[in-house]
Amino acid sequence: MFGARCLLRALRSCSSAPCPRHRPAARVSVRGALGVQSANGERVKVQGWIRSIRSQKEVLFLHVNDGSSLESLQVVADSSFDSRELAFGSSVEVQGQLVKSPSKKQNVELKAEKIEVVGNCDAKAFPVKYKERHPLEYLRQYPHLRCRTNVLGSVLRVRSEATAAIHSFFKDSGFVHIHTPVITSNDCEGAGELFQVEPSSKIKVPEENFFNIPVFLTVSGQLHLEVMSGAFTQVFTFGPTFRAENSQSRRHLAEFYMVEAEISFLESLQDLMQVMESLFKTTAMTVLSNCPKDVELCHKFIAPGQKDRLEHMLKNNFLVISYTEAVEILKQASQNFTFTPEWGADLHTEHEKYLVKHCGDIPVFVINYPLALKPFYMRDNEDGPQHTVAAVDLLVPGVGELFGGSLREERYHFLEQRLARLGLTEAYQWYLDLRRFGSVPHGGFGMGFERYLQCILGIDNIKDVIPFPRFTHSCLL
Amino acid sequence: MFGARCLLRALRSCSSAPCPRHRPAARVSVRGALGVQSANGERVKVQGWIRSIRSQKEVLFLHVNDGSSLESLQVVADSSFDSRELAFGSSVEVQGQLVKSPSKKQNVELKAEKIEVVGNCDAKAFPVKYKERHPLEYLRQYPHLRCRTNVLGSVLRVRSEATAAIHSFFKDSGFVHIHTPVITSNDCEGAGELFQVEPSSKIKVPEENFFNIPVFLTVSGQLHLEVMSGAFTQVFTFGPTFRAENSQSRRHLAEFYMVEAEISFLESLQDLMQVMESLFKTTAMTVLSNCPKDVELCHKFIAPGQKDRLEHMLKNNFLVISYTEAVEILKQASQNFTFTPEWGADLHTEHEKYLVKHCGDIPVFVINYPLALKPFYMRDNEDGPQHTVAAVDLLVPGVGELFGGSLREERYHFLEQRLARLGLTEAYQWYLDLRRFGSVPHGGFGMGFERYLQCILGIDNIKDVIPFPRFTHSCLL
Repeated sequence: MFGARCLLRALRSCSSAPCPRHRPAARVSVRGALGVQSANGERVKVQGWIRSIRSQKEVLFLHVNDGSSLESLQVVADSSFDSRELAFGSSVEVQGQLVKSPSKKQNVELKAEKIEVVGNCDAKAFPVKYKERHPLEYLRQYPHLRCRTNVLGSVLRVRSEATAAIHSFFKDSGFVHIHTPVITSNDCEGAGELFQVEPSSKIKVPEENFFNIPVFLTVSGQLHLEVMSGAFTQVFTFGPTFRAENSQSRRHLAEFYMVEAEISFLESLQDLMQVMESLFKTTAMTVLSNCPKDVELCHKFIAPGQKDRLEHMLKNNFLVISYTEAVEILKQASQNFTFTPEWGADLHTEHEKYLVKHCGDIPVFVINYPLALKPFYMRDNEDGPQHTVAAVDLLVPGVGELFGGSLREERYHFLEQRLARLGLTEAYQWYLDLRRFGSVPHGGFGMGFERYLQCILGIDNIKDVIPFPRFTHSCLL
Repeated sequence: MFGARCLLRALRSCSSAPCPRHRPAARVSVRGALGVQSANGERVKVQGWIRSIRSQKEVLFLHVNDGSSLESLQVVADSSFDSRELAFGSSVEVQGQLVKSPSKKQNVELKAEKIEVVGNCDAKAFPVKYKERHPLEYLRQYPHLRCRTNVLGSVLRVRSEATAAIHSFFKDSGFVHIHTPVITSNDCEGAGELFQVEPSSKIKVPEENFFNIPVFLTVSGQLHLEVMSGAFTQVFTFGPTFRAENSQSRRHLAEFYMVEAEISFLESLQDLMQVMESLFKTTAMTVLSNCPKDVELCHKFIAPGQKDRLEHMLKNNFLVISYTEAVEILKQASQNFTFTPEWGADLHTEHEKYLVKHCGDIPVFVINYPLALKPFYMRDNEDGPQHTVAAVDLLVPGVGELFGGSLREERYHFLEQRLARLGLTEAYQWYLDLRRFGSVPHGGFGMGFERYLQCILGIDNIKDVIPFPRFTHSCLL
């Protein structure tokens, strides 16, 4: 290590006066270094954290990772570089030459000329232990450190790629991106599970209420998107949504992300389902192609068999059944359900699971739900005694409900009557306005982003696909 | 109109049995239609809202807009199509042939074969009036309808393009996107202007407090990004942030968007400023190139002179002065300030304005602020009696502070001492942990996205560059 330090000092003293023998090395990411096709002694500088260290008689092997990829870069150094500071978790800067690796495990390795420990790691106190595969439950206790493990690293890189892929999907299809508000005065359908927002008790606000009216955290950007679809025809939003649900389930969070789209001049659920299926498949294909190793890690170590299950979903057309058909299927099932399936009642998780299994583990759209089960804005199918609305849910293997959508009631008088029955006419006058001024048939959907990641990667618990999970009794950091 | 309806009905009856004479027209967006280089009678279907209507003896001219572009498509129809329903604001579906336009105003026009009014518009009640250029203040009363005007349409398309450009900028530079949490238990620096979050009084929660501890809406994702930069080296977030500021200013909102980045192994403000300047310029260039007409509208009608001001900013290198130099400049100014400039005091808006003007209306970085003015996490410059930290703000013409950033204190003992002095050691143990386990020099910044849009477009009031503004006493929809 002293050798390295001395060399580094030498390089530093060079840096003010140009020094031909030690031209400054180009800084590259680990991903960049690993991507060099035929390494030929290029002088580079790599910075990252030590993921493994192996000392042999005359050679020292380090694996350095900077989070740009799952793979680490192998650093090969003379054993004189060895030092107690070069330990798992510490941060280092390595300069040297990129060369072809003699091993078949990697294409490229870095022949170290200088190694500097940037920051030590207190190994005893570090909750992430060398060479241990920690259970995800254990890691959840350390939201500030778990991202430094292989699994969380891969999951969050996939999350980042999927985010970009979703933005591209909509942009390429001509959608305008809208930031729908987080704080809203409309309590959407009078749903119960709302978070309320007030200025902190620490500060004085002249009015008792900052906004003059009670405000809440949004449960959906749909109504605001409908406003925008009346101007831009095709719009989407991708932001945080909130439910004060007292749930410890592996599918619920108090703060989660939703991808929502709204499309004007759309007249059929078929057209809507086409966009939903296309979003699901295009995003998955992009992720698989852009971070194959990260996906592979999850499919191999977290969810064996998930690779085949995902391929099965991607290569088959999603199925469509009506709610009425779904209830018939459930009634004829040999399985005993906790909630007896009945026309007019909600589908429960156990029902969703059965339906997906029944459909051969292919995602299945369930359409045309009872009007009485659904919110006021869904389009009336006007279909007699078993009165339904043009709603659609997408059920997927392992996760259950992934998308929810509908055609919206664009006919002024239909909507007015439903609002009047709920005593909401006044509160939703602006929403009625959208039907007074150039109303158009339209529809849209929302997709739970975390559930989507669970579905792609096979991650069982939703708390492991979001950087900082918020749920009942827990808001760490 | 009857003619159109009859034709449409005929087309519909054809659609089940293929009808060679009336093949279904391809649906195109207005943008798509206007982009056809040499129109040659292609049969298309266009859907949108009527923006203008002009009836001549034998010909009817309509302009149809669907929000895909600022420009509308000119529809030319036989006067027999005329009807009272064909009015400003109503939604229509037009089928016909795309042909070269004889006028020089447009390349292409649509020769209508069928026109269907999809939804009427109650012109008397419609707050947007035909051929009127409404003041932005007037339109703010109608957040559900103002997006249907040219100006708001352009601003929100630019917002969407800028959002995409920012995501691309970071992705292309190897940053990982992170969704930092909106609800947080850390009240960042003990800042006062926080919104607190509680489950709505309407619902029963077993515990008095849903999360067991008081939680707030985030004022910055920085600390969470620092966690992530310790795993991925380069990270960014782009999400909503909140301040319960009792301000009616044209530069403040209670809910606004921030672009934040955090970079590990970054050792100098110079490197940080390079990323900031590059983000500013790359995004602006992308927006200018992708929606020139939308930007032009703002530069022409809302902010005359802004085109030149923006070009001036883009073609010059941003300037750098220290806080100490800034105070000297202000002291020597002939101008009388409300707040006397003095070393150790905050720069006020009047000072920022003067400095930008003094620097020739080029954005200027002010660096190295007094330690006493800045939060605990900024890196100590250890520079004697006028004790400063490595902070940087970017001031821009017309808007003032646009970016704020700093190197972060990565040295455990420095940070521990500052936290101890504030009595925050326990609360920020996790933050100290980041310095115990492989600490690295790092830095980052945040950019106010709405202010950025104001700066690019020359829009005076921040409420006009966000779809649904939230500020004191106002949370419409």
